Amino acid sequence: MYAGVDTGGRGLFWDVLAGRAAPPPAAVTLGWELVAIDPERGTIEVAFSAGESFLNPAGVIQGGFLAAMLDDTMGPALVATLPPGRFAPTLDLHVQFVRPARPGRLLGKGRVVHRGTEVCHLAGELLDVQGRTVAVATATAVIRAAPGM
Amino acid sequence: MYAGVDTGGRGLFWDVLAGRAAPPPAAVTLGWELVAIDPERGTIEVAFSAGESFLNPAGVIQGGFLAAMLDDTMGPALVATLPPGRFAPTLDLHVQFVRPARPGRLLGKGRVVHRGTEVCHLAGELLDVQGRTVAVATATAVIRAAPGM
Repeated sequence: MYAGVDTGGRGLFWDVLAGRAAPPPAAVTLGWELVAIDPERGTIEVAFSAGESFLNPAGVIQGGFLAAMLDDTMGPALVATLPPGRFAPTLDLHVQFVRPARPGRLLGKGRVVHRGTEVCHLAGELLDVQGRTVAVATATAVIRAAPGM
Repeated sequence: MYAGVDTGGRGLFWDVLAGRAAPPPAAVTLGWELVAIDPERGTIEVAFSAGESFLNPAGVIQGGFLAAMLDDTMGPALVATLPPGRFAPTLDLHVQFVRPARPGRLLGKGRVVHRGTEVCHLAGELLDVQGRTVAVATATAVIRAAPGM
């Protein structure tokens, strides 16, 4: 759990978590917070705060913002496993929307399905506060040198 | 072109365009604006304003926000063809990220590939101001009664 996370690790993810680097603006916009992480297993749980500014004309969260949350669930599951100076841009993202999501708290569960030397396969799920699946996703990411590092 | 668009049409898309309904918050957040539309051909061009609040740790637009823009490109291409009281939630969204995108203006091109009675197939592309492809996407949407209509 977050309370027990060792923030002594190095690398982009851990530097943000320990307050040594500013949180990425996209994560702030999505209300990202860490719930639990296990870098050895490649799993993560995060929470989001879905705001009114994400609503579509039907009055539910626009699917793209759910995609953004899933990207920010799966990406960190991988980035947490990277050494300093490495980053992992997403190449490909596939999202299936299962049910409408209302503003409020959403839980993201992500995992590294396969961590190659460069190419990595990721999977994730977004749940509402009742534990119902809102959307599921897969992604492909590639490990690269982080810009400016 | 937008200047020549007949806003006398009815339905969700046209009501927003003509100022008869408030623009959806997600579109406002993404800086959505209409550039051109041809409902008979099922094509649309829109522009977005990618803000600093969409940046990932690498200093480029987080892919999920590009996905949100593509959703808000392809969705309107379809919604513009719907009669009043109908909406078309996205079931499935697949995005391929071609190159990093910086804050600023991005152009979305969307089209209805196939418009079924209920199930519709959509495609879209996001370009930077130099006309370079930033991301491409496909989506599946389904025509439903709009909530509260």
